[in-house]
Amino acid sequence: MSLTRTHTCGALTESDAGEKVTLNGWVAVRRDLGGVIFIDLRDRYGVTQIVFDQENETLHKKAEQLRTEYVIGVKGIVRKRGEENINPEMKTGTIEVVAHELEIYSEAETTPFEIKDGIETNEDTRLKYRYLDLRRPKIQQNLMMRSDFNQSVRAYFYDHDFTEVETPFLMKSTPEGARDYLVPSRVNAGKFFALPQSPQTYKQLLMVSGFDRYFQIVKCFRDEDLRADRQPEFTQIDVEMSFVNEDDVLDMTEGLMKKIMHDVKGIDIDIPFARMTYDEALQTYGTDKPDTRFGLPIVNFSEIVEESEFKIFSRTVADGGAVLGIKVPGQGDMGRGAIDRLTERVQRETGAAGLIYIKLNEQDGIKCSVEKFLKEETVTAMVEKAEAEQGDLVLILAGPDPQVYKQMGTLRLMMGEEHDLIDQSTYNFLWVTDFPLVEWDSDEHRYHALHHPFTAPKPEDVEKMDDDPAEVRSRAYDLVLNGYEIGGGSIRINQREQQKQMFDLLGIDSEEAQERFGFLLDAFKYGVPPHGGIALGVDRIVMILAGGTSLRDVIAFPKNKNAQSTMDGSPAEVDKEQLDELHIRLKNTLTNN
Amino acid sequence: MSLTRTHTCGALTESDAGEKVTLNGWVAVRRDLGGVIFIDLRDRYGVTQIVFDQENETLHKKAEQLRTEYVIGVKGIVRKRGEENINPEMKTGTIEVVAHELEIYSEAETTPFEIKDGIETNEDTRLKYRYLDLRRPKIQQNLMMRSDFNQSVRAYFYDHDFTEVETPFLMKSTPEGARDYLVPSRVNAGKFFALPQSPQTYKQLLMVSGFDRYFQIVKCFRDEDLRADRQPEFTQIDVEMSFVNEDDVLDMTEGLMKKIMHDVKGIDIDIPFARMTYDEALQTYGTDKPDTRFGLPIVNFSEIVEESEFKIFSRTVADGGAVLGIKVPGQGDMGRGAIDRLTERVQRETGAAGLIYIKLNEQDGIKCSVEKFLKEETVTAMVEKAEAEQGDLVLILAGPDPQVYKQMGTLRLMMGEEHDLIDQSTYNFLWVTDFPLVEWDSDEHRYHALHHPFTAPKPEDVEKMDDDPAEVRSRAYDLVLNGYEIGGGSIRINQREQQKQMFDLLGIDSEEAQERFGFLLDAFKYGVPPHGGIALGVDRIVMILAGGTSLRDVIAFPKNKNAQSTMDGSPAEVDKEQLDELHIRLKNTLTNN
Repeated sequence: MSLTRTHTCGALTESDAGEKVTLNGWVAVRRDLGGVIFIDLRDRYGVTQIVFDQENETLHKKAEQLRTEYVIGVKGIVRKRGEENINPEMKTGTIEVVAHELEIYSEAETTPFEIKDGIETNEDTRLKYRYLDLRRPKIQQNLMMRSDFNQSVRAYFYDHDFTEVETPFLMKSTPEGARDYLVPSRVNAGKFFALPQSPQTYKQLLMVSGFDRYFQIVKCFRDEDLRADRQPEFTQIDVEMSFVNEDDVLDMTEGLMKKIMHDVKGIDIDIPFARMTYDEALQTYGTDKPDTRFGLPIVNFSEIVEESEFKIFSRTVADGGAVLGIKVPGQGDMGRGAIDRLTERVQRETGAAGLIYIKLNEQDGIKCSVEKFLKEETVTAMVEKAEAEQGDLVLILAGPDPQVYKQMGTLRLMMGEEHDLIDQSTYNFLWVTDFPLVEWDSDEHRYHALHHPFTAPKPEDVEKMDDDPAEVRSRAYDLVLNGYEIGGGSIRINQREQQKQMFDLLGIDSEEAQERFGFLLDAFKYGVPPHGGIALGVDRIVMILAGGTSLRDVIAFPKNKNAQSTMDGSPAEVDKEQLDELHIRLKNTLTNN
Repeated sequence: MSLTRTHTCGALTESDAGEKVTLNGWVAVRRDLGGVIFIDLRDRYGVTQIVFDQENETLHKKAEQLRTEYVIGVKGIVRKRGEENINPEMKTGTIEVVAHELEIYSEAETTPFEIKDGIETNEDTRLKYRYLDLRRPKIQQNLMMRSDFNQSVRAYFYDHDFTEVETPFLMKSTPEGARDYLVPSRVNAGKFFALPQSPQTYKQLLMVSGFDRYFQIVKCFRDEDLRADRQPEFTQIDVEMSFVNEDDVLDMTEGLMKKIMHDVKGIDIDIPFARMTYDEALQTYGTDKPDTRFGLPIVNFSEIVEESEFKIFSRTVADGGAVLGIKVPGQGDMGRGAIDRLTERVQRETGAAGLIYIKLNEQDGIKCSVEKFLKEETVTAMVEKAEAEQGDLVLILAGPDPQVYKQMGTLRLMMGEEHDLIDQSTYNFLWVTDFPLVEWDSDEHRYHALHHPFTAPKPEDVEKMDDDPAEVRSRAYDLVLNGYEIGGGSIRINQREQQKQMFDLLGIDSEEAQERFGFLLDAFKYGVPPHGGIALGVDRIVMILAGGTSLRDVIAFPKNKNAQSTMDGSPAEVDKEQLDELHIRLKNTLTNN
């Protein structure tokens, strides 16, 4: 039985002086000063100082047993601290509680790391003892913010007449099946469910059913190849609306983000957000998720250099590639060593063949690293096109399209970070639109859907679907925040014939389409409203709002980079009996049965 | 592109007469009256009548193509209906919209069943075409109610300072492993995750972490043997609190239910709820989830008949069994045929050996079916104890304890339903407390936890844990509504030693305990607050509030009784390649590899 608390550890102030109170919490710090024992008692709400005087000998003896992370209950009287003892860092820093009763609920061994923010701890240890890591104030705040975030999202959608519908977790394996988590059925021998990579087909069926406006905050699953900062399970805000065009979905999403930023961060952001086409994003920032918190737009020098005698330039252009530059302000006097190191990094991280530069500084005037191969007027033309001035540096890459754009995009980000060009206090939202509907996969010799096979083509491009599919733009949109893709969606196909045409284009034949999506195609027989929606990544958005750089900072019990939980030891081997019940066995089991 | 609607189909009233409006929706009904075409246009919000006059010939021709379930957009002018055409059944029954523009978004084939409430449709067909079944107004209302229900729940917990935390879906297989859904890992060969049967260990860890008050509406999974009205995935309201006793959890839950009933049903219910011990519930109602909307308490005749010469009675009592009765008011003149049918049904549905009765009616006086074996005073004593009067029927079962209580509980429910003793408009909440901590499994020769292995024993019973465990009561509680168990929880063990003792009692040895729950036992080393919580079944509560009798009425995409989705055909066979990637194979695959 525990003492019923009257206050949390973050609640008491001077106005409570003289009150009898009961607090519960963890011993954060214990100090023994000339016989008086001071305890900093911690709970999720704050910290309160508890004093054990020497007068009550039994109580004082009991308090002497206390160690860090013991869980206790204390009854006592609130006392105003003397002027000299006030701690302005603590919410409760003007008072302390003089104990007259102490209950020890639970003792504690020494923790493997200190329960404090800003402690350097090995990531593996933190994950193994996640329940202790979660006692750190910063991560508690992150998770409480995430809780507020969820509530803000739901309040918004309820206010806008959306219905929250729970879609199934046990569903049919989908086209991108290779990344599906499968779930063997015990009662249906030899058959498998899949965990959803997204509730895409279900939310479309809900539109077919007439639910009109659907939302859900929902877990999704992807058994991805291991790479940093991916989690096998992730959370998304899933939204679908009927009788809408692109603008309706974008407006609704902007309103949502405005409310979230207000509720969670206390920031009023401007809407509507800027919009940029996919082509423009790629040509200006070398990526479809540009960080627009800083400039350094890409400048295209191809026309200037296409006739150049410098073969690396002219041949690149002749082969359909491009010569691109960015101007880095104030770096015109970068030294030889720094440029060499940068060149090496660019080669390593982007795969670019080399880095060419033009420096503009007082000592050298205009100095180009390949000036002996270039006419002076060519260099001048590039400087002019880049609008470079005294003191600036122009960095140049040449290579095939589209790789060179991506390389330049990476170089731009490097420069932004290295030279502190990014205002970390701003939140730059950007819509990217007009994505290609499909892209050619030269390995598999077939087209892939850039978003997914349910995305509608732009009406004006539909006629190109048969003859020139790579040129068809889709009705898809991505939402980008500070260079992270935080969401994406589209207006969907709502015609059975067009859906079939899309499957054809993707090389999914009728039989396969019927087997995999038969229920959706069937549903399309019975009256489908025009509809579209969006899915937003909760983990990533909360991570950005929490100012973190790792998804693990905003997930209570994350998996490590090997998709394992070192805390509970999952995934784990299971008994043969359990596999027998599920009608499966391990592939490398050699005995037949 | 769709026409941007100005109103939904449930919005227009007389005050909109003369307005130009745009509506979108489904053709619910199409009537052709002397050249004028009337359409009932349906969306989630209601139905509006659309009129196509003959004047606009092109438009009229287009309207002639319309069939049921076509999806259309209409522009037109709102017109007040003539007095004689007002439809008081429709929200929009005083107006109609005279169309001057029509857009057909999607045609529709004839649906396999009519989109209407109260249509008798084969359950399989309904589930196969779930997206059409979901168009029926009643089921749409159910799901919208469920959405409101969720929001009401969350608002309550946010108001009470709870933090919503998402716990993992990919976790370690738990002790009741046989019912776990397993998930093979692709990137960790030969290893498996399990889907949670409940987030029990995680919510306890959150208390260890100091989150203090946690809640979540969360999907859970159980691969149960097939039986009616179970779903492999179900949703629960999951709650855990630190520094609490039983009363704190019960109070918090009562406040929640009061708010839900108010928000969702507009009903003010009284709190606190009645409480009853497990023993009392079993002895009075023959079940630990009594429906208290009607009386018919069980009367124990054992003492009256223990000396009886009627061996069936006296021997039953001598063998430790019981002779039980219930009084059914007003059924004292039940005829021979009816009683025979009842006896047969009782035997079939409860396994009771036979049914004995005492009828009290004018014709026969007091008539007992076994009166020739009983003294008159014994019959009289039973009648008196049952407080039976002229016109009543007393039904008697004799048998071993506890089976006979359960049989009588079932018979009591039959009588309640058959004789309309249940007030269907009331909501009777009841707490059942003081459950046994463990029960003996005579097949497996070991104790099972009646709730789960983390439930704390009552402090006053702890000393019996070693010698008389079956007599130890736990700090568990169940919430019962109208005879359904809608939730359950407990104060948990928060001492490592006691947790080990519990595992010992359940026959889980140290090694197994460490392997399965090592992380929880480890966590218990570092300071654990007293804590407890509850889990409430969303599907079942919403089903009761919706007045339904099947969970499928309140789940958007349910599985059928064979744990299959006939709509998408899951679970399904998968490609060998997919199994290869997951390092598993089917058990009956004969070839080695």
